[in-house]
Amino acid sequence: MNSSKKIKIGIFDSGLGGLTVFKSLANTYRNNTSFIYLGDLAHLPYGDKSQESIIKYSQRIVDFFIKKKVDIIIVACNSASSVALNQIKCDVPIIGTIQPSVQSVIKSNNSKLIGIIGTDTTINSKAYNRAFEDYNNYTIYSVSCPLFVPIVEEGWENTDIAHQIAAKYLNQFQSINLDTIILACTHYPMLLDTLKSVFKKLGHHNLYFIDSGKAITQYLSSKLSLSPDQAPADILHLNDKFYITDTSYQFNKLANRFLGTDIPNIELITL
Amino acid sequence: MNSSKKIKIGIFDSGLGGLTVFKSLANTYRNNTSFIYLGDLAHLPYGDKSQESIIKYSQRIVDFFIKKKVDIIIVACNSASSVALNQIKCDVPIIGTIQPSVQSVIKSNNSKLIGIIGTDTTINSKAYNRAFEDYNNYTIYSVSCPLFVPIVEEGWENTDIAHQIAAKYLNQFQSINLDTIILACTHYPMLLDTLKSVFKKLGHHNLYFIDSGKAITQYLSSKLSLSPDQAPADILHLNDKFYITDTSYQFNKLANRFLGTDIPNIELITL
Repeated sequence: MNSSKKIKIGIFDSGLGGLTVFKSLANTYRNNTSFIYLGDLAHLPYGDKSQESIIKYSQRIVDFFIKKKVDIIIVACNSASSVALNQIKCDVPIIGTIQPSVQSVIKSNNSKLIGIIGTDTTINSKAYNRAFEDYNNYTIYSVSCPLFVPIVEEGWENTDIAHQIAAKYLNQFQSINLDTIILACTHYPMLLDTLKSVFKKLGHHNLYFIDSGKAITQYLSSKLSLSPDQAPADILHLNDKFYITDTSYQFNKLANRFLGTDIPNIELITL
Repeated sequence: MNSSKKIKIGIFDSGLGGLTVFKSLANTYRNNTSFIYLGDLAHLPYGDKSQESIIKYSQRIVDFFIKKKVDIIIVACNSASSVALNQIKCDVPIIGTIQPSVQSVIKSNNSKLIGIIGTDTTINSKAYNRAFEDYNNYTIYSVSCPLFVPIVEEGWENTDIAHQIAAKYLNQFQSINLDTIILACTHYPMLLDTLKSVFKKLGHHNLYFIDSGKAITQYLSSKLSLSPDQAPADILHLNDKFYITDTSYQFNKLANRFLGTDIPNIELITL
Protein backbone atom coordinates (compact mmCIF):
# COMPACT_ATOMS: atom_id res chain seq x y z
CA MET A 1 0.00 0.00 0.00
CA ASN A 2 1.31 3.40 -1.02
CA SER A 3 2.25 5.11 2.22
CA SER A 4 1.55 8.58 0.81
CA LYS A 5 -2.13 7.77 0.17
CA LYS A 6 -4.46 8.13 3.12
CA ILE A 7 -6.58 5.09 3.87
CA LYS A 8 -10.28 5.93 3.76
CA ILE A 9 -12.13 4.10 6.52
CA GLY A 10 -15.94 3.82 6.66
CA ILE A 11 -17.34 3.18 10.15
CA PHE A 12 -20.98 2.57 11.01
CA ASP A 13 -23.13 1.88 14.02
CA SER A 14 -26.87 2.08 14.67
CA GLY A 15 -26.15 5.07 16.86
CA LEU A 16 -23.25 7.02 18.20
CA GLY A 17 -21.55 4.39 20.39
CA GLY A 18 -19.39 3.54 17.37
CA LEU A 19 -17.70 6.91 17.84
CA THR A 20 -15.65 5.15 20.55
CA VAL A 21 -14.22 3.03 17.72
CA PHE A 22 -13.61 6.08 15.54
CA LYS A 23 -11.90 7.77 18.48
CA SER A 24 -9.53 4.88 19.08
CA LEU A 25 -8.64 4.61 15.37
CA ALA A 26 -8.23 8.37 14.88
CA ASN A 27 -6.12 8.66 18.03
CA THR A 28 -3.76 6.01 16.68
CA TYR A 29 -3.59 6.32 12.88
CA ARG A 30 -4.70 9.90 12.33
CA ASN A 31 -1.90 10.91 9.95
CA ASN A 32 -2.54 8.08 7.49
CA THR A 33 -6.32 7.92 7.51
CA SER A 34 -9.52 9.71 6.63
CA PHE A 35 -12.93 8.66 7.92
CA ILE A 36 -16.59 8.45 7.04
CA TYR A 37 -18.81 7.74 10.04
CA LEU A 38 -22.49 6.86 9.69
CA GLY A 39 -24.88 6.56 12.63
CA ASP A 40 -28.10 4.88 11.47
CA LEU A 41 -30.27 6.79 13.94
CA ALA A 42 -33.38 6.12 11.83
CA HIS A 43 -33.17 2.48 12.93
CA LEU A 44 -31.59 2.85 16.34
CA PRO A 45 -31.17 0.60 18.27
CA TYR A 46 -30.35 -2.43 16.08
CA GLY A 47 -30.57 -4.60 19.20
CA ASP A 48 -34.37 -4.41 19.15
CA LYS A 49 -34.68 -5.26 15.45
CA SER A 50 -34.89 -8.59 13.62
CA GLN A 51 -31.86 -10.17 11.98
CA GLU A 52 -33.45 -9.58 8.55
CA SER A 53 -33.85 -5.88 9.26
CA ILE A 54 -30.31 -5.50 10.59
CA ILE A 55 -28.92 -7.17 7.46
CA LYS A 56 -31.01 -4.87 5.23
CA TYR A 57 -29.97 -1.69 7.04
CA SER A 58 -26.28 -2.74 7.12
CA GLN A 59 -26.26 -3.56 3.40
CA ARG A 60 -27.62 -0.09 2.54
CA ILE A 61 -24.86 1.56 4.55
CA VAL A 62 -22.17 -0.64 3.02
CA ASP A 63 -23.43 0.23 -0.49
CA PHE A 64 -23.31 3.94 0.48
CA PHE A 65 -19.74 3.59 1.74
CA ILE A 66 -18.64 1.78 -1.43
CA LYS A 67 -20.03 4.66 -3.53
CA LYS A 68 -17.93 6.94 -1.33
CA LYS A 69 -14.89 4.85 -2.32
CA VAL A 70 -13.81 3.73 1.13
CA ASP A 71 -10.86 1.34 1.33
CA ILE A 72 -12.21 -0.63 4.27
CA ILE A 73 -15.44 -0.80 6.29
CA ILE A 74 -15.69 -1.21 10.05
CA VAL A 75 -18.97 -2.49 11.47
CA ALA A 76 -18.66 -0.70 14.81
CA CYS A 77 -21.81 -2.27 16.19
CA ASN A 78 -21.74 -5.58 17.99
CA SER A 79 -25.38 -6.38 17.14
CA ALA A 80 -24.72 -5.94 13.40
CA SER A 81 -21.37 -7.74 13.66
CA SER A 82 -23.12 -10.64 15.41
CA VAL A 83 -26.08 -11.21 13.13
CA ALA A 84 -25.39 -9.44 9.80
CA LEU A 85 -21.67 -9.36 8.97
CA ASN A 86 -21.59 -12.74 7.23
CA GLN A 87 -24.63 -11.85 5.11
CA ILE A 88 -23.43 -8.49 3.79
CA LYS A 89 -22.31 -8.27 0.15
CA CYS A 90 -19.21 -6.12 0.03
CA ASP A 91 -16.26 -5.92 -2.35
CA VAL A 92 -13.90 -4.06 -0.02
CA PRO A 93 -12.55 -5.54 3.21
CA ILE A 94 -15.16 -5.41 5.97
CA ILE A 95 -14.36 -5.96 9.63
CA GLY A 96 -16.74 -6.36 12.53
CA THR A 97 -16.11 -6.25 16.25
CA ILE A 98 -15.90 -9.98 16.87
CA GLN A 99 -12.76 -11.21 15.08
CA PRO A 100 -10.60 -8.33 16.41
CA SER A 101 -11.78 -9.01 19.99
CA VAL A 102 -11.20 -12.75 19.63
CA GLN A 103 -7.72 -12.12 18.18
CA SER A 104 -6.91 -9.86 21.14
CA VAL A 105 -7.83 -12.70 23.48
CA ILE A 106 -5.74 -15.24 21.56
CA LYS A 107 -2.71 -12.92 21.56
CA SER A 108 -3.02 -12.12 25.26
CA ASN A 109 -2.08 -15.69 26.22
CA ASN A 110 -4.13 -15.48 29.37
CA SER A 111 -6.12 -18.41 30.64
CA LYS A 112 -8.99 -19.75 28.61
CA LEU A 113 -11.97 -18.67 30.69
CA ILE A 114 -13.55 -15.70 28.94
CA GLY A 115 -16.44 -13.53 30.13
CA ILE A 116 -18.47 -11.71 27.51
CA ILE A 117 -20.96 -8.97 28.27
CA GLY A 118 -23.18 -7.35 25.64
CA THR A 119 -26.71 -6.55 24.57
CA ASP A 120 -29.39 -9.21 24.32
CA THR A 121 -28.99 -9.46 20.54
CA THR A 122 -25.23 -9.94 20.70
CA ILE A 123 -25.29 -12.46 23.54
CA ASN A 124 -28.26 -14.44 22.22
CA SER A 125 -26.70 -14.65 18.74
CA LYS A 126 -23.82 -16.74 20.20
CA ALA A 127 -21.60 -15.16 17.53
CA TYR A 128 -18.65 -14.78 19.93
CA ASN A 129 -19.02 -18.43 21.02
CA ARG A 130 -18.88 -19.53 17.38
CA ALA A 131 -15.79 -17.39 16.76
CA PHE A 132 -13.98 -19.07 19.65
CA GLU A 133 -14.89 -22.54 18.35
CA ASP A 134 -12.06 -22.16 15.82
CA TYR A 135 -9.60 -22.24 18.71
CA ASN A 136 -9.13 -24.98 21.27
CA ASN A 137 -10.21 -25.06 24.83
CA TYR A 138 -11.74 -21.65 25.34
CA THR A 139 -14.70 -21.64 27.68
CA ILE A 140 -17.10 -18.76 27.27
CA TYR A 141 -19.39 -17.34 29.93
CA SER A 142 -21.71 -14.67 28.63
CA VAL A 143 -24.24 -12.36 30.24
CA SER A 144 -26.50 -9.86 28.53
CA CYS A 145 -26.74 -6.49 30.25
CA PRO A 146 -29.59 -4.59 28.53
CA LEU A 147 -29.59 -1.67 30.98
CA PHE A 148 -25.95 -0.71 30.38
CA VAL A 149 -26.68 1.22 27.15
CA PRO A 150 -29.52 3.32 28.63
CA ILE A 151 -27.51 3.99 31.80
CA VAL A 152 -24.59 5.28 29.68
CA GLU A 153 -26.92 7.34 27.47
CA GLU A 154 -28.37 8.88 30.64
CA GLY A 155 -24.85 9.84 31.77
CA TRP A 156 -25.19 7.79 34.97
CA GLU A 157 -22.31 5.38 34.30
CA ASN A 158 -20.41 6.31 37.46
CA THR A 159 -23.32 6.39 39.91
CA ASP A 160 -24.25 4.02 42.75
CA ILE A 161 -27.19 2.93 40.62
CA ALA A 162 -24.83 1.90 37.80
CA HIS A 163 -22.79 -0.06 40.37
CA GLN A 164 -25.86 -1.91 41.60
CA ILE A 165 -27.10 -2.69 38.09
CA ALA A 166 -23.65 -3.99 37.16
CA ALA A 167 -23.45 -6.05 40.37
CA LYS A 168 -26.83 -7.63 39.62
CA TYR A 169 -25.76 -8.66 36.10
CA LEU A 170 -22.17 -9.65 36.91
CA ASN A 171 -22.91 -11.61 40.06
CA GLN A 172 -23.08 -14.74 37.88
CA PHE A 173 -19.34 -14.44 37.25
CA GLN A 174 -18.50 -14.55 40.97
CA SER A 175 -17.52 -18.21 41.24
CA ILE A 176 -15.76 -18.39 37.86
CA ASN A 177 -12.03 -17.87 37.68
CA LEU A 178 -12.12 -15.49 34.71
CA ASP A 179 -9.18 -13.40 33.62
CA THR A 180 -10.53 -11.73 30.48
CA ILE A 181 -13.73 -9.77 29.86
CA ILE A 182 -14.83 -8.80 26.37
CA LEU A 183 -16.90 -5.60 26.34
CA ALA A 184 -19.09 -6.63 23.43
CA CYS A 185 -20.85 -3.29 23.03
CA THR A 186 -19.36 0.03 21.94
CA HIS A 187 -21.08 1.85 24.85
CA TYR A 188 -19.42 -0.26 27.53
CA PRO A 189 -15.96 1.38 27.63
CA MET A 190 -17.77 4.35 29.22
CA LEU A 191 -18.65 2.02 32.12
CA LEU A 192 -15.14 0.69 32.59
CA ASP A 193 -14.45 2.23 36.02
CA THR A 194 -17.75 0.93 37.37
CA LEU A 195 -17.17 -2.53 35.88
CA LYS A 196 -13.65 -2.75 37.33
CA SER A 197 -14.95 -1.76 40.77
CA VAL A 198 -17.77 -4.31 40.67
CA PHE A 199 -15.50 -7.10 39.44
CA LYS A 200 -13.05 -6.34 42.27
CA LYS A 201 -15.85 -6.72 44.80
CA LEU A 202 -16.64 -10.07 43.18
CA GLY A 203 -13.03 -11.14 43.79
CA HIS A 204 -11.68 -10.54 40.26
CA HIS A 205 -8.64 -8.29 40.71
CA ASN A 206 -6.56 -8.58 37.55
CA LEU A 207 -9.01 -8.79 34.73
CA TYR A 208 -7.93 -7.98 31.18
CA PHE A 209 -10.69 -5.92 29.50
CA ILE A 210 -11.04 -5.96 25.74
CA ASP A 211 -13.00 -3.19 24.10
CA SER A 212 -14.05 -3.18 20.46
CA GLY A 213 -12.31 0.09 19.63
CA LYS A 214 -8.90 -0.95 20.91
CA ALA A 215 -9.24 -4.47 19.50
CA ILE A 216 -10.09 -3.12 16.03
CA THR A 217 -7.22 -0.63 16.27
CA GLN A 218 -4.74 -3.43 16.96
CA TYR A 219 -6.28 -5.65 14.29
CA LEU A 220 -5.98 -2.96 11.59
CA SER A 221 -2.32 -2.53 12.36
CA SER A 222 -1.58 -5.97 10.91
CA LYS A 223 -4.43 -6.02 8.41
CA LEU A 224 -3.48 -2.73 6.73
CA SER A 225 0.19 -2.47 7.72
CA LEU A 226 -0.67 0.75 9.51
CA SER A 227 1.79 2.21 11.97
CA PRO A 228 0.68 4.31 14.92
CA ASP A 229 1.29 8.04 14.59
CA GLN A 230 4.62 9.23 15.96
CA ALA A 231 3.24 12.62 16.96
CA PRO A 232 -0.20 13.29 18.43
CA ALA A 233 -2.70 14.83 16.00
CA ASP A 234 -6.12 16.50 16.33
CA ILE A 235 -8.79 13.82 16.46
CA LEU A 236 -11.01 15.57 13.88
CA HIS A 237 -9.76 16.41 10.38
CA LEU A 238 -11.54 18.62 7.91
CA ASN A 239 -11.96 15.89 5.31
CA ASP A 240 -13.68 13.45 7.70
CA LYS A 241 -17.43 13.09 7.10
CA PHE A 242 -20.10 12.34 9.69
CA TYR A 243 -23.57 11.25 8.59
CA ILE A 244 -26.74 10.38 10.48
CA THR A 245 -30.01 9.01 9.03
CA ASP A 246 -32.28 10.77 11.53
CA THR A 247 -31.94 13.35 14.27
CA SER A 248 -32.99 13.21 17.87
CA TYR A 249 -32.91 16.06 20.33
CA GLN A 250 -29.93 14.59 22.17
CA PHE A 251 -27.63 13.30 19.41
CA ASN A 252 -25.22 16.21 19.78
CA LYS A 253 -24.92 15.67 23.53
CA LEU A 254 -24.28 11.94 23.02
CA ALA A 255 -21.75 12.54 20.24
CA ASN A 256 -19.85 14.83 22.55
CA ARG A 257 -19.91 12.30 25.37
CA PHE A 258 -18.51 9.47 23.23
CA LEU A 259 -15.94 11.62 21.48
CA GLY A 260 -15.04 14.18 24.13
CA THR A 261 -15.58 16.99 21.64
CA ASP A 262 -18.32 18.35 19.40
CA ILE A 263 -18.54 17.22 15.79
CA PRO A 264 -18.69 20.49 13.83
CA ASN A 265 -20.78 19.29 10.88
CA ILE A 266 -23.00 16.24 10.89
CA GLU A 267 -24.99 15.69 7.71
CA LEU A 268 -28.49 14.23 7.79
CA ILE A 269 -29.09 11.79 4.91
CA THR A 270 -31.70 9.26 3.83
CA LEU A 271 -30.44 5.90 2.55
CA MET B 1 -74.53 5.00 16.95
CA ASN B 2 -76.25 1.64 16.33
CA SER B 3 -75.71 -0.36 19.49
CA SER B 4 -75.75 -3.68 17.64
CA LYS B 5 -72.68 -2.74 15.56
CA LYS B 6 -69.34 -3.28 17.20
CA ILE B 7 -67.05 -0.27 17.19
CA LYS B 8 -63.76 -1.06 15.46
CA ILE B 9 -60.87 0.61 17.31
CA GLY B 10 -57.37 0.93 15.82
CA ILE B 11 -54.61 1.34 18.43
CA PHE B 12 -50.94 1.94 17.70
CA ASP B 13 -47.70 2.45 19.56
CA SER B 14 -44.05 2.25 18.52
CA GLY B 15 -43.81 -0.90 20.59
CA LEU B 16 -45.90 -3.00 22.88
CA GLY B 17 -46.47 -0.58 25.78
CA GLY B 18 -49.69 0.47 24.04
CA LEU B 19 -51.07 -2.95 24.92
CA THR B 20 -51.75 -1.45 28.38
CA VAL B 21 -54.21 0.87 26.59
CA PHE B 22 -55.74 -2.03 24.65
CA LYS B 23 -56.07 -3.97 27.92
CA SER B 24 -57.90 -1.16 29.67
CA LEU B 25 -60.28 -0.64 26.72
CA ALA B 26 -60.92 -4.36 26.18
CA ASN B 27 -61.51 -4.92 29.89
CA THR B 28 -64.17 -2.21 29.88
CA TYR B 29 -65.93 -2.24 26.51
CA ARG B 30 -65.20 -5.76 25.27
CA ASN B 31 -68.76 -6.64 24.24
CA ASN B 32 -69.20 -3.62 21.96
CA THR B 33 -65.78 -3.37 20.38
CA SER B 34 -63.28 -5.05 18.09
CA PHE B 35 -59.63 -4.03 17.88
CA ILE B 36 -56.69 -3.70 15.53
CA TYR B 37 -53.40 -3.17 17.35
CA LEU B 38 -50.21 -2.19 15.54
CA GLY B 39 -46.79 -2.08 17.19
CA ASP B 40 -44.33 -0.26 14.91
CA LEU B 41 -41.36 -2.32 16.07
CA ALA B 42 -39.42 -1.43 12.89
CA HIS B 43 -39.09 2.10 14.24
CA LEU B 44 -39.07 1.45 17.99
CA PRO B 45 -38.60 3.56 20.07
CA TYR B 46 -40.22 6.71 18.65
CA GLY B 47 -38.66 8.66 21.53
CA ASP B 48 -35.24 8.51 19.84
CA LYS B 49 -36.53 9.66 16.44
CA SER B 50 -37.06 13.12 14.96
CA GLN B 51 -40.48 14.76 14.88
CA GLU B 52 -40.52 14.47 11.07
CA SER B 53 -39.90 10.72 11.28
CA ILE B 54 -42.55 10.19 13.96
CA ILE B 55 -45.11 12.06 11.85
CA LYS B 56 -44.21 9.98 8.76
CA TYR B 57 -44.44 6.65 10.61
CA SER B 58 -47.70 7.63 12.34
CA GLN B 59 -49.30 8.72 9.05
CA ARG B 60 -48.48 5.35 7.44
CA ILE B 61 -50.16 3.51 10.31
CA VAL B 62 -53.21 5.78 10.23
CA ASP B 63 -53.57 5.18 6.47
CA PHE B 64 -53.32 1.43 7.11
CA PHE B 65 -56.01 1.62 9.80
CA ILE B 66 -58.32 3.62 7.56
CA LYS B 67 -58.01 0.96 4.84
CA LYS B 68 -59.01 -1.54 7.54
CA LYS B 69 -62.14 0.57 8.10
CA VAL B 70 -61.65 1.41 11.75
CA ASP B 71 -64.22 3.72 13.37
CA ILE B 72 -61.69 5.47 15.60
CA ILE B 73 -57.91 5.56 16.04
CA ILE B 74 -56.07 5.68 19.37
CA VAL B 75 -52.47 6.93 19.35
CA ALA B 76 -51.36 4.88 22.37
CA CYS B 77 -47.91 6.41 22.39
CA ASN B 78 -47.14 9.56 24.29
CA SER B 79 -44.21 10.50 22.03
CA ALA B 80 -46.41 10.33 18.90
CA SER B 81 -49.29 12.04 20.69
CA SER B 82 -46.93 14.83 21.75
CA VAL B 83 -45.20 15.62 18.46
CA ALA B 84 -47.28 14.08 15.64
CA LEU B 85 -50.99 14.00 16.48
CA ASN B 86 -51.76 17.51 15.19
CA GLN B 87 -49.93 16.83 11.92
CA ILE B 88 -51.63 13.57 10.99
CA LYS B 89 -54.19 13.61 8.17
CA CYS B 90 -57.08 11.41 9.20
CA ASP B 91 -60.77 11.33 8.29
CA VAL B 92 -61.94 9.25 11.26
CA PRO B 93 -61.76 10.46 14.86
CA ILE B 94 -58.23 10.17 16.23
CA ILE B 95 -57.39 10.44 19.91
CA GLY B 96 -53.99 10.66 21.55
CA THR B 97 -52.97 10.25 25.17
CA ILE B 98 -52.86 13.93 26.09
CA GLN B 99 -56.45 15.24 25.90
CA PRO B 100 -57.88 12.23 27.79
CA SER B 101 -55.28 12.66 30.58
CA VAL B 102 -55.91 16.41 30.78
CA GLN B 103 -59.68 15.80 30.91
CA SER B 104 -59.17 13.32 33.75
CA VAL B 105 -57.32 16.00 35.69
CA ILE B 106 -60.01 18.62 35.03
CA LYS B 107 -62.77 16.25 36.15
CA SER B 108 -60.93 15.19 39.29
CA ASN B 109 -61.34 18.64 40.84
CA ASN B 110 -58.15 18.24 42.79
CA SER B 111 -55.77 21.12 43.31
CA LYS B 112 -54.00 22.67 40.39
CA LEU B 113 -50.43 21.47 40.89
CA ILE B 114 -49.78 18.68 38.41
CA GLY B 115 -46.69 16.49 38.10
CA ILE B 116 -45.99 14.91 34.72
CA ILE B 117 -43.45 12.16 34.14
CA GLY B 118 -42.58 10.79 30.71
CA THR B 119 -39.86 10.13 28.17
CA ASP B 120 -37.49 12.86 27.01
CA THR B 121 -39.46 13.38 23.78
CA THR B 122 -42.79 13.77 25.56
CA ILE B 123 -41.49 16.08 28.29
CA ASN B 124 -39.33 18.21 25.99
CA SER B 125 -42.21 18.65 23.53
CA LYS B 126 -44.18 20.57 26.25
CA ALA B 127 -47.34 19.15 24.65
CA TYR B 128 -49.00 18.54 28.04
CA ASN B 129 -48.16 22.09 29.14
CA ARG B 130 -49.81 23.47 25.99
CA ALA B 131 -52.89 21.32 26.60
CA PHE B 132 -53.28 22.74 30.12
CA GLU B 133 -52.97 26.32 28.82
CA ASP B 134 -56.61 26.07 27.71
CA TYR B 135 -57.61 25.89 31.37
CA ASN B 136 -56.93 28.43 34.08
CA ASN B 137 -54.44 28.26 36.85
CA TYR B 138 -52.86 24.86 36.40
CA THR B 139 -49.18 24.72 37.26
CA ILE B 140 -47.20 21.93 35.62
CA TYR B 141 -44.03 20.35 36.96
CA SER B 142 -42.54 17.83 34.58
CA VAL B 143 -39.59 15.45 34.79
CA SER B 144 -38.31 13.13 32.09
CA CYS B 145 -37.42 9.65 33.29
CA PRO B 146 -35.60 7.94 30.38
CA LEU B 147 -34.62 4.84 32.37
CA PHE B 148 -38.18 3.86 33.31
CA VAL B 149 -38.91 2.20 29.93
CA PRO B 150 -35.75 0.04 29.90
CA ILE B 151 -36.23 -0.90 33.57
CA VAL B 152 -39.79 -2.09 32.81
CA GLU B 153 -38.66 -3.92 29.67
CA GLU B 154 -36.02 -5.69 31.78
CA GLY B 155 -38.75 -6.78 34.23
CA TRP B 156 -37.04 -4.97 37.13
CA GLU B 157 -39.89 -2.58 37.93
CA ASN B 158 -40.30 -3.78 41.52
CA THR B 159 -36.62 -3.99 42.48
CA ASP B 160 -34.54 -1.84 44.82
CA ILE B 161 -32.77 -0.52 41.73
CA ALA B 162 -36.08 0.68 40.28
CA HIS B 163 -36.80 2.40 43.60
CA GLN B 164 -33.47 4.19 43.55
CA ILE B 165 -33.83 5.27 39.92
CA ALA B 166 -37.32 6.58 40.65
CA ALA B 167 -36.10 8.39 43.79
CA LYS B 168 -33.34 10.07 41.77
CA TYR B 169 -35.79 11.34 39.14
CA LEU B 170 -38.67 12.21 41.47
CA ASN B 171 -36.64 13.94 44.15
CA GLN B 172 -37.37 17.22 42.35
CA PHE B 173 -41.04 16.91 43.35
CA GLN B 174 -40.22 16.75 47.09
CA SER B 175 -40.94 20.32 48.03
CA ILE B 176 -43.96 20.74 45.74
CA ASN B 177 -47.42 20.15 47.12
CA LEU B 178 -48.65 18.01 44.22
CA ASP B 179 -51.77 15.94 44.33
CA THR B 180 -51.92 14.56 40.78
CA ILE B 181 -49.33 12.70 38.72
CA ILE B 182 -49.81 12.02 35.01
CA LEU B 183 -48.00 8.87 33.88
CA ALA B 184 -47.23 10.17 30.39
CA CYS B 185 -45.88 6.89 29.02
CA THR B 186 -47.72 3.63 28.44
CA HIS B 187 -44.96 1.64 30.19
CA TYR B 188 -45.30 3.50 33.47
CA PRO B 189 -48.43 1.81 34.90
CA MET B 190 -46.16 -1.26 35.35
CA LEU B 191 -44.09 0.87 37.76
CA LEU B 192 -47.04 2.10 39.79
CA ASP B 193 -46.25 0.29 43.06
CA THR B 194 -42.66 1.55 42.97
CA LEU B 195 -43.76 5.10 42.14
CA LYS B 196 -46.32 5.14 44.97
CA SER B 197 -43.72 3.92 47.42
CA VAL B 198 -41.15 6.53 46.32
CA PHE B 199 -43.69 9.36 46.40
CA LYS B 200 -44.72 8.32 49.94
CA LYS B 201 -41.10 8.57 51.07
CA LEU B 202 -41.02 12.05 49.53
CA GLY B 203 -44.02 13.02 51.68
CA HIS B 204 -46.74 12.65 49.03
CA HIS B 205 -49.34 10.32 50.54
CA ASN B 206 -52.57 10.80 48.61
CA LEU B 207 -51.55 11.28 45.05
CA TYR B 208 -54.03 10.71 42.24
CA PHE B 209 -52.27 8.85 39.38
CA ILE B 210 -53.56 9.17 35.85
CA ASP B 211 -52.51 6.57 33.33
CA SER B 212 -53.10 6.85 29.61
CA GLY B 213 -55.08 3.61 29.36
CA LYS B 214 -57.60 4.50 32.04
CA ALA B 215 -57.84 8.11 30.88
CA ILE B 216 -58.56 7.04 27.28
CA THR B 217 -61.09 4.50 28.53
CA GLN B 218 -63.02 7.20 30.43
CA TYR B 219 -62.71 9.64 27.52
CA LEU B 220 -64.18 7.15 25.02
CA SER B 221 -67.18 6.59 27.23
CA SER B 222 -68.42 10.12 26.50
CA LYS B 223 -66.89 10.41 23.02
CA LEU B 224 -68.53 7.22 21.67
CA SER B 225 -71.42 6.83 24.10
CA LEU B 226 -69.93 3.50 25.11
CA SER B 227 -71.14 1.83 28.28
CA PRO B 228 -68.92 -0.46 30.31
CA ASP B 229 -69.67 -4.18 29.99
CA GLN B 230 -72.13 -5.51 32.54
CA ALA B 231 -70.50 -8.97 32.61
CA PRO B 232 -66.76 -9.68 32.41
CA ALA B 233 -65.55 -10.96 29.04
CA ASP B 234 -62.36 -12.60 27.76
CA ILE B 235 -59.82 -9.90 26.95
CA LEU B 236 -58.95 -11.39 23.54
CA HIS B 237 -61.57 -11.99 20.88
CA LEU B 238 -61.04 -13.98 17.71
CA ASN B 239 -61.73 -11.07 15.38
CA ASP B 240 -59.12 -8.79 16.99
CA LYS B 241 -55.97 -8.31 14.89
CA PHE B 242 -52.44 -7.71 16.14
CA TYR B 243 -49.76 -6.47 13.75
CA ILE B 244 -46.07 -5.70 14.17
CA THR B 245 -43.72 -4.17 11.60
CA ASP B 246 -40.62 -6.08 12.74
CA THR B 247 -39.81 -8.86 15.17
CA SER B 248 -37.34 -8.98 18.00
CA TYR B 249 -36.43 -12.01 20.03
CA GLN B 250 -38.31 -10.73 23.07
CA PHE B 251 -41.52 -9.26 21.65
CA ASN B 252 -43.60 -12.24 22.80
CA LYS B 253 -42.27 -11.99 26.34
CA LEU B 254 -43.00 -8.25 26.43
CA ALA B 255 -46.48 -8.66 24.95
CA ASN B 256 -47.26 -11.17 27.66
CA ARG B 257 -45.97 -8.84 30.39
CA PHE B 258 -48.08 -5.89 29.27
CA LEU B 259 -51.20 -7.95 28.61
CA GLY B 260 -50.94 -10.71 31.19
CA THR B 261 -51.55 -13.32 28.51
CA ASP B 262 -50.04 -14.48 25.21
CA ILE B 263 -51.35 -13.06 21.95
CA PRO B 264 -52.11 -16.16 19.87
CA ASN B 265 -51.45 -14.72 16.42
CA ILE B 266 -49.38 -11.64 15.70
CA GLU B 267 -48.94 -10.82 12.02
CA LEU B 268 -45.71 -9.31 10.70
CA ILE B 269 -46.36 -6.65 8.05
CA THR B 270 -44.43 -3.99 6.14
CA LEU B 271 -46.04 -0.56 5.78
